[in-house]
Amino acid sequence: MQRQKLVINGERLKTTLEQFANFGRTENNGVTRLSLSMEDIRVRNYFRLCCEELGLTVSVDDMGCMYATLAGTEDKPPILIGSHLDSVKKGGRFDGVLGVVAGLEVVRTLVENQIKPQIPITIVNFTNEEGARFEPSMMASGVLSGKFEKSAMLKKVDSEGVTFEEALKASGYEGDVENRLKEASALLELHIEQGPILEKEAFSIGVVECVVGMACYEIEVTGESDHAGTTPMNMRKDALFATNNLINEIRRRLGDLDEDLVFTIGRMNVYPSIHTVIPNKVVFTLEARHKDMEIVRAVKNFIEALPNLTSLNEGCEVKTTKLWERDTVWFEPEICQLLEKSAQSLGYSNRRMVSGAGHDAQFIASFVPTAMLFVPSINGKSHCEEELTTWEDCEKGINVLLDTVLTMLAK
Amino acid sequence: MQRQKLVINGERLKTTLEQFANFGRTENNGVTRLSLSMEDIRVRNYFRLCCEELGLTVSVDDMGCMYATLAGTEDKPPILIGSHLDSVKKGGRFDGVLGVVAGLEVVRTLVENQIKPQIPITIVNFTNEEGARFEPSMMASGVLSGKFEKSAMLKKVDSEGVTFEEALKASGYEGDVENRLKEASALLELHIEQGPILEKEAFSIGVVECVVGMACYEIEVTGESDHAGTTPMNMRKDALFATNNLINEIRRRLGDLDEDLVFTIGRMNVYPSIHTVIPNKVVFTLEARHKDMEIVRAVKNFIEALPNLTSLNEGCEVKTTKLWERDTVWFEPEICQLLEKSAQSLGYSNRRMVSGAGHDAQFIASFVPTAMLFVPSINGKSHCEEELTTWEDCEKGINVLLDTVLTMLAK
Ligand SMILES: [Zn+2]
Ligand SMILES: [Zn+2]
Repeated sequence: MQRQKLVINGERLKTTLEQFANFGRTENNGVTRLSLSMEDIRVRNYFRLCCEELGLTVSVDDMGCMYATLAGTEDKPPILIGSHLDSVKKGGRFDGVLGVVAGLEVVRTLVENQIKPQIPITIVNFTNEEGARFEPSMMASGVLSGKFEKSAMLKKVDSEGVTFEEALKASGYEGDVENRLKEASALLELHIEQGPILEKEAFSIGVVECVVGMACYEIEVTGESDHAGTTPMNMRKDALFATNNLINEIRRRLGDLDEDLVFTIGRMNVYPSIHTVIPNKVVFTLEARHKDMEIVRAVKNFIEALPNLTSLNEGCEVKTTKLWERDTVWFEPEICQLLEKSAQSLGYSNRRMVSGAGHDAQFIASFVPTAMLFVPSINGKSHCEEELTTWEDCEKGINVLLDTVLTMLAK
Repeated sequence: MQRQKLVINGERLKTTLEQFANFGRTENNGVTRLSLSMEDIRVRNYFRLCCEELGLTVSVDDMGCMYATLAGTEDKPPILIGSHLDSVKKGGRFDGVLGVVAGLEVVRTLVENQIKPQIPITIVNFTNEEGARFEPSMMASGVLSGKFEKSAMLKKVDSEGVTFEEALKASGYEGDVENRLKEASALLELHIEQGPILEKEAFSIGVVECVVGMACYEIEVTGESDHAGTTPMNMRKDALFATNNLINEIRRRLGDLDEDLVFTIGRMNVYPSIHTVIPNKVVFTLEARHKDMEIVRAVKNFIEALPNLTSLNEGCEVKTTKLWERDTVWFEPEICQLLEKSAQSLGYSNRRMVSGAGHDAQFIASFVPTAMLFVPSINGKSHCEEELTTWEDCEKGINVLLDTVLTMLAK
């Protein structure tokens, strides 16, 4: 027997997202809601109010993470739905907040349909996902999962010299360590894609299988800074020309590795950067991301061998330093399947995909069965005021979450 | 009948160069003698003293250029020997001062050998060749030759807010416009090469045929700054990768044009230069120098057509702006021949060459028969404390000047 599909109220969702966007709204319709800033405190207060109006119990842990729980008829580990309410400076109205509002709308729909779940449903707001005010990003989920030391995080300082600890205490959102997320049945994080794939390929829903592994290196090329007018071409040690050769080789070799590999030379500085002087030093970063760690390892081997490619170095010295790396985090396949089935049963176009960006879910996945859902980002833009996802896609994403929660509850 | 070769006193030359290097000497045996600074005023005073001791008449023009003249037996336009006494910050002990000391040693040798020339011999020190304190470089020779407006130059300001006019008046070296160099039989400027060719090819003397023409452009490549982790390679508009393609094409095409062409990408800035963000803008300079203006024109045509190479631009926009250009300045072929013959008759290894760097001689050449002589720069270094030319090569260079002056006088 086919269950009648329950869906959320699309009009209310739109209103709710607009209301959340009022906290820290910028001139060009983005938001600036740095973690534990006045704007973040106000949006937290508003979120708490919404939850309390629904009859949820709100608790806060020692990292400021908020948990709003709809009690279950049985005392089982909750199903979590959530993301983060903080944003980067001049960020968008969807990144993070969509995943929290998703939880709110799912619970609102359950409550207004008088569905009393056996398992508790908890909406979660993770503190300081963006790391825009206090580095690193995904700070609270990192502490919850044991990746970061809480004591080190408390000492992190913003650009004004305020520590995370001071900001947390001043915010009124320093809760109890006892309230930390420990055991849960599942974590579902709905997020905007922050990339162009879903929009370009005309899918509404992306079922995220993993957050891809990556490696990031700094490469330093050292030559000699001679006079641009008096040094013949064959007597130069031009660090920029050597860099150009290396970039050709990087593009050729990494381009051949796998079509899903993404690699970026994002930061580059040329020295002394005077038009009449041959560059004697170029420093650039190279990062690459792929779900298959064998491919990431092949990238690392290639990068670490760059200093040996003497035929390309134009007489310069090449040095590589690994800045960091992370392994691929795979989400729970069973939950991915549930999400996929829900999307299909609702008639929403969907595909499996990977996340190239980091999310709280990747840390929580180490101790909670976790999965993520993406909805399209128009033009792939995020972390900017132009960030946009259609109301329809937001609604579809939340309907998939709702359907999956109902499926989990029906088990 | 072969004339007995008169040569300068090598020991005295060495002592003289060391004495001049005492004015503004740096920790690492370089000099800092910015134009009209205390160090420059002191070296000027010392130079005047040396000249007056020789019985020369010293005059100063309205731009602070100094002229020290050994009277001729006939009232003819003088033969000028000279260069500049100013230096860049932490510059070397040879750039400029060698050409002035050359004049001093030539005249000292004439005087001590009681040679009374028919034509007056004038040692000249051009003010502010380097442009290190007051831009532009070659300021005084530029005014003398009508390339620069004196009134505009007087208003030039150093990093402390002092105008050139104020510094000139305060120095005591503001002379009379009547004393300006107008007519002359010849100008001979001995200078260090500032490049590696003579040393690498084991020549002591370079006879400079011209100061090469050049063109300098700024090229701006504009793409899109998407997320490094979430944007597939084929959906990017990476301004740095586009720049890399352009540099490949620049090297291929300009490298094929002529082996004597030098071209340099000296200044480059990448934006936003964040390791996790695909660069949306790269701005770089490209300058090229060659004696054949046809080749410089071919370079200009190629650069100006770069925006049309859409197969290389990775979806980015390419814009080129010409920053400046200058034509090749040819020196007086007859004087070049005299210098070459003198070098040969003295048994010094020599070759014809071009100057890739600018010099006062290139401006004065517009109204005085002019030529330049280069001596080797060890490792091609100049404008730095490591700048070095052997005493032997300095001596040889001045002996060539002396011999050429004697030949001119014998005519
Ligand atoms: Zn986010
Ligand atoms: Zn010079």
